[in-house]
Amino acid sequence: MPMIEPKDAIAQILANTTVLETELRSLEETAGSVLAEDIVSRHPMPPFDNSAMDGYAVRAADIADATEATPVSLKLIDEQPAGRATDVAVGPGTAIKIMTGAPVPAGADTVVQVELTTEQDGTVDIQAAKKAGRNIRLAGEEMAAGTTAVPTGTTIDHVVIGVLASLGYAQVSVYRRPRIAVIGTGSELVPVEAELSPGKIRDSNSYALTAQAKAIGAEAVRMGVAVDTREETTKMVRAALQQADIVVTSGGVSVGEYDFVKDVIEELGGKLHFWGVRQKPGKPLAFWTIGDKLVFGLPGNPVASLLCFEEYVRPAALSMMGREKLFRPKVAAALTHDFKKKAGRHHFVGALVERTETGYKWTANGRQGSAMLRSITGVDGVAVIPTDVTEMKAGERTVVQLVTLPEDH
Amino acid sequence: MPMIEPKDAIAQILANTTVLETELRSLEETAGSVLAEDIVSRHPMPPFDNSAMDGYAVRAADIADATEATPVSLKLIDEQPAGRATDVAVGPGTAIKIMTGAPVPAGADTVVQVELTTEQDGTVDIQAAKKAGRNIRLAGEEMAAGTTAVPTGTTIDHVVIGVLASLGYAQVSVYRRPRIAVIGTGSELVPVEAELSPGKIRDSNSYALTAQAKAIGAEAVRMGVAVDTREETTKMVRAALQQADIVVTSGGVSVGEYDFVKDVIEELGGKLHFWGVRQKPGKPLAFWTIGDKLVFGLPGNPVASLLCFEEYVRPAALSMMGREKLFRPKVAAALTHDFKKKAGRHHFVGALVERTETGYKWTANGRQGSAMLRSITGVDGVAVIPTDVTEMKAGERTVVQLVTLPEDH
Repeated sequence: MPMIEPKDAIAQILANTTVLETELRSLEETAGSVLAEDIVSRHPMPPFDNSAMDGYAVRAADIADATEATPVSLKLIDEQPAGRATDVAVGPGTAIKIMTGAPVPAGADTVVQVELTTEQDGTVDIQAAKKAGRNIRLAGEEMAAGTTAVPTGTTIDHVVIGVLASLGYAQVSVYRRPRIAVIGTGSELVPVEAELSPGKIRDSNSYALTAQAKAIGAEAVRMGVAVDTREETTKMVRAALQQADIVVTSGGVSVGEYDFVKDVIEELGGKLHFWGVRQKPGKPLAFWTIGDKLVFGLPGNPVASLLCFEEYVRPAALSMMGREKLFRPKVAAALTHDFKKKAGRHHFVGALVERTETGYKWTANGRQGSAMLRSITGVDGVAVIPTDVTEMKAGERTVVQLVTLPEDH
Repeated sequence: MPMIEPKDAIAQILANTTVLETELRSLEETAGSVLAEDIVSRHPMPPFDNSAMDGYAVRAADIADATEATPVSLKLIDEQPAGRATDVAVGPGTAIKIMTGAPVPAGADTVVQVELTTEQDGTVDIQAAKKAGRNIRLAGEEMAAGTTAVPTGTTIDHVVIGVLASLGYAQVSVYRRPRIAVIGTGSELVPVEAELSPGKIRDSNSYALTAQAKAIGAEAVRMGVAVDTREETTKMVRAALQQADIVVTSGGVSVGEYDFVKDVIEELGGKLHFWGVRQKPGKPLAFWTIGDKLVFGLPGNPVASLLCFEEYVRPAALSMMGREKLFRPKVAAALTHDFKKKAGRHHFVGALVERTETGYKWTANGRQGSAMLRSITGVDGVAVIPTDVTEMKAGERTVVQLVTLPEDH
């Protein structure tokens, strides 16, 4: 099977990805999910005329001549706290004491804030004129009943949760988030808590990939490590397919004789879409579908494995959960040093990015080509160097996919 | 108590904030936490010399003259899969078949990748010379034993989790994350699932603030709404103080007679540091400490409430969990329209931000001055307009605190 271009790989993946079904979720469990319904205001917002101030509800006509020197005295006939509605109406020469957010009593058409008043012995002296409507928030002035407050397709954050709460949406229809099952493969791998014995290293990919899946809001299940026997691998992949929308394996997709993953997935019905992408790291990436489920065969090299998740699994998972924005923001950034590579593959390079007066700069992080995750800790983004480029000079620009907000320097 | 400047408010808050104690956490529960110990490699990484390729472990001297036209035949004496260590040694004229990641057998000093070989009947023909050391990853080449792989103070992400797993850290010491208890106040508030009755609106702040606390990685507890009686408020604040490091109330801190929150917190031992910040929205913000605990009295206005969490509670909570970076990245961005305000307060304005060839641009989102959360859905950042500015023209620049990575336009 010939190697394909990264852009063709992501296109094939997304062509085989569909948005998951909707589900009702309790409001408090929706952060990060995508709305699958228009959120419509069932009543005007605010629901009733209410006071924007602590003060006195009065008739504007009564206080038209009030000044600090010549205040107007009004008789206090009731008190209107927030949370209930008085049935006393304000008539000529009278006032009702009112709290912020409380309904404006019948008859009143303006509110004078407490700072412009003096209250004594059942009367209040008003020290300034106010036009009708001042300090009153009118029913429906923010939204009429029936207004779409938040449209379907919106990603829910704390602000949207507040809007939904204010409109009485205790449950809300959202797109289900994918469940991602992560399988490590390799007879050399032992669990994190095990002592090393000769020839063994610790499994790190299944932990890192599971955390990567959780970080994008997916449900993630770390299945563990399938040792390099066909039976073991079959059993674990089958269990993963039973519970997950996306199965991610790491290792087992190169050409070694102990790499069973491809055979196992195809025996289980996997339709191979591609195997081999013109990129470094991550060349042996493979992608299958089994019905609606996606299966990614990531390389065992830890850096390659996480890079392939970032570039290919992440957009697919976001698409499944209904997100519109699937990719990181891209900037053109100037290299701070010379860079050489061989032709024939696109290189993805962990980049430390700075923002300067004249734009973005990037520096390759740590030792390039290392398979060690430590070489990509703390990167701000991924620089993409096209396949046919072999040499770049300091100052030349490349595309960088940003994963953090770079700081000024 | 006089109003203070926003910068003095945050300074007073941080002066009263201390990093929480450390705790051991299972590796899989550490994403977002800050390391409280140096992660030291307990052994060399890689732990043993291993093959970077699938191929044949040989002696470089034996194949010095090998070419495609004149291959060198070696006798195959064993097979070395990953995960165990053969005790057969490679001697003159022999080779051991080896998989990627497998230990390099004694006697061999180079590995020839499978693509440059032909195997038949117990011998392998090597078609190219390789210098000693090729395709071998040496023990310790990434890290010697005792190397600090990840320093204390690092925020843990999926990459760091992978590093910790590879080094055998099944548990790790991190700073505890703060527990934030959120209390809504106001007799006008009913729960999200309730029908509205006259004078009532739905509680939205307790839901939104709880989601905001979770979004920064804090533990969050939504206590609910304390109706406007002193007893009810005292009971709920006391319960919140018993379980939380930070108590956040919303509402109840203006000058209305039904606003008990200040009195209640001070009766419970709260030491008031400030009440009133020269800002809009959010002027009535109050801040107390009770021992090591922080108490924030946020305004009831929903937009003001969330803004004050963003500007003041968030940095305090991040500081408690050991983060170094407490504030959002700031950019200078050009207004896309004219802007007027009164002097006397700093204005925080929800901003839609775009990145252009010449820098950042921002546009005020929706209706400024609205208390409705809907007016701040989807903002990219918070623009800060200083107290003495009263008018800005399109094209003038202000500071914008970015909360998202703005897209190119």
